[in-house]
Amino acid sequence: MLSLTILGNNSAIPAFGRNPTAQVLQLQDDYFLIDCGEGTQSQLSKYKIRRSKINHIFISHLHGDHYFGLIGLLTSMSLLSRTQDLHIYGPAQLEQIIKIQLDVADTKLSYSLYFHSILSPGILLDENKFTVTVFSLNHRIECWGFLFRQKKKPRSIDSTKIKQFDISASFYPRLQNGEDYTNQDGTVIANELVTTANIPSKSYAYCADTIYDEGLIDVVREVDMLYHETTYLNSSADKAAARFHSTTSQAANIALKAKVKRLIVGHFSSKYEHLDEFLTETTEIFKHTEVSKEGTCYFIL
Amino acid sequence: MLSLTILGNNSAIPAFGRNPTAQVLQLQDDYFLIDCGEGTQSQLSKYKIRRSKINHIFISHLHGDHYFGLIGLLTSMSLLSRTQDLHIYGPAQLEQIIKIQLDVADTKLSYSLYFHSILSPGILLDENKFTVTVFSLNHRIECWGFLFRQKKKPRSIDSTKIKQFDISASFYPRLQNGEDYTNQDGTVIANELVTTANIPSKSYAYCADTIYDEGLIDVVREVDMLYHETTYLNSSADKAAARFHSTTSQAANIALKAKVKRLIVGHFSSKYEHLDEFLTETTEIFKHTEVSKEGTCYFIL
Repeated sequence: MLSLTILGNNSAIPAFGRNPTAQVLQLQDDYFLIDCGEGTQSQLSKYKIRRSKINHIFISHLHGDHYFGLIGLLTSMSLLSRTQDLHIYGPAQLEQIIKIQLDVADTKLSYSLYFHSILSPGILLDENKFTVTVFSLNHRIECWGFLFRQKKKPRSIDSTKIKQFDISASFYPRLQNGEDYTNQDGTVIANELVTTANIPSKSYAYCADTIYDEGLIDVVREVDMLYHETTYLNSSADKAAARFHSTTSQAANIALKAKVKRLIVGHFSSKYEHLDEFLTETTEIFKHTEVSKEGTCYFIL
Repeated sequence: MLSLTILGNNSAIPAFGRNPTAQVLQLQDDYFLIDCGEGTQSQLSKYKIRRSKINHIFISHLHGDHYFGLIGLLTSMSLLSRTQDLHIYGPAQLEQIIKIQLDVADTKLSYSLYFHSILSPGILLDENKFTVTVFSLNHRIECWGFLFRQKKKPRSIDSTKIKQFDISASFYPRLQNGEDYTNQDGTVIANELVTTANIPSKSYAYCADTIYDEGLIDVVREVDMLYHETTYLNSSADKAAARFHSTTSQAANIALKAKVKRLIVGHFSSKYEHLDEFLTETTEIFKHTEVSKEGTCYFIL
């Protein structure tokens, strides 16, 4: 199971009740906070996501609408006597920004905070159940995207069916990996006879602020869910390019060319009160698009 | 006219819909933002106070619940193309915290930002219409309070009455200052005969986080309105002292002993959902107390 809860879908200035960027991705039992604009801790409370569930925070870049809520969240976690470790992944300079603000307040956190500077694209986290890969985005300052992928689960051995065949238990791990078994008289026992497939692993790619960049297509190819920024409607394509942002059609084109299953768009400019046209313009190119809404949870089962 | 709008009246962690500390003081046409917890820019929007009205920001100390909203407000002002100067008064280290966050985002503000480090108690601002005095508070880290005082307006000369007397125009400024006039034959013309008093000047003292400190009594003596923190009810007096905060009775005692006209209390601990007891406990000692409420404007006409 993969679910994404949008806490903030606006760019730059909070407007029309919309907050700056933040979202929580849940992969089975793991919660990832992705970006952390001002007010994120209040949004977490509002949507009843417990701060204590979050052990990993990913910050795409150091424009304020993506991280000004981080220091408040970190200190609140400490005031609430958190004890479990917290890991932050972000641009190197963020560590100093956190440190100076803790130092001036003479704050000793109640938990261990591990800061992981992102220095280059590649695998950021490789755990039992998932991997997180970081990739470069083309924005005005250093900016990173994140690809979350559940690991393939091994096939399940069917305990009743396996009894019909004389298969050594030492071969079971290879059965789980999908191999056929050949017994001593040369008979091949097809893997499907004795195992069942598990639910396929899911993937989610988060493209924070970026100009239209076809280099992303290979990176996010065939993911189950893609979040791509659409700061502007098509009529402001010039402004989007000048500010290293994307339009609706550009986001939809990336989704289409990468053959993703589902597209969620967000990071709307504060000049737009109504978002209907974001849906119209994206779905013209890529049907399976949703315009992100704060407090909404997007599931993939 | 003096009015105080409460934008946030909670301490530490946002809770029960209450925000961290921020308030706007209006003295005639001048707007002062006092402290700036996370979410202040959204609270300004909610209560329809235009960011552009604010030219002076005062930060009491560098615990996050008093300033984590500042950087977001500063950058939003720039995104909204502010041009007029902005002055910030606060602990010296705040300047570096602002600078590093602007630098990493490669942000050039659209306006001139003047940072004034508070280094010692005394007069911080002496303008035509008001003075702002800063005083020390006794908290866990360097912490300042602010006393805002409208300047006494000169008395108004009554243009009809003055014609009855042969008073040289060069003496008018002295009449405005309240002096009597003695003419050449020694007749004294009482000031009240030819001038009228203007509305008395108003004063407001803001006591941010502080342990109970009778040293404050002289500082805030007879102000028209005093804001004093009451993080805890009396039953948590030990906790208040240990954390360098105050209780209801302590705030009320300061108000009583300083003979202020009106007391507003705030900075409530996140453990209190309901605030009724704050009113009960303070008014037992000092009748003219109000428990601050976000979005409420406290006037002195």
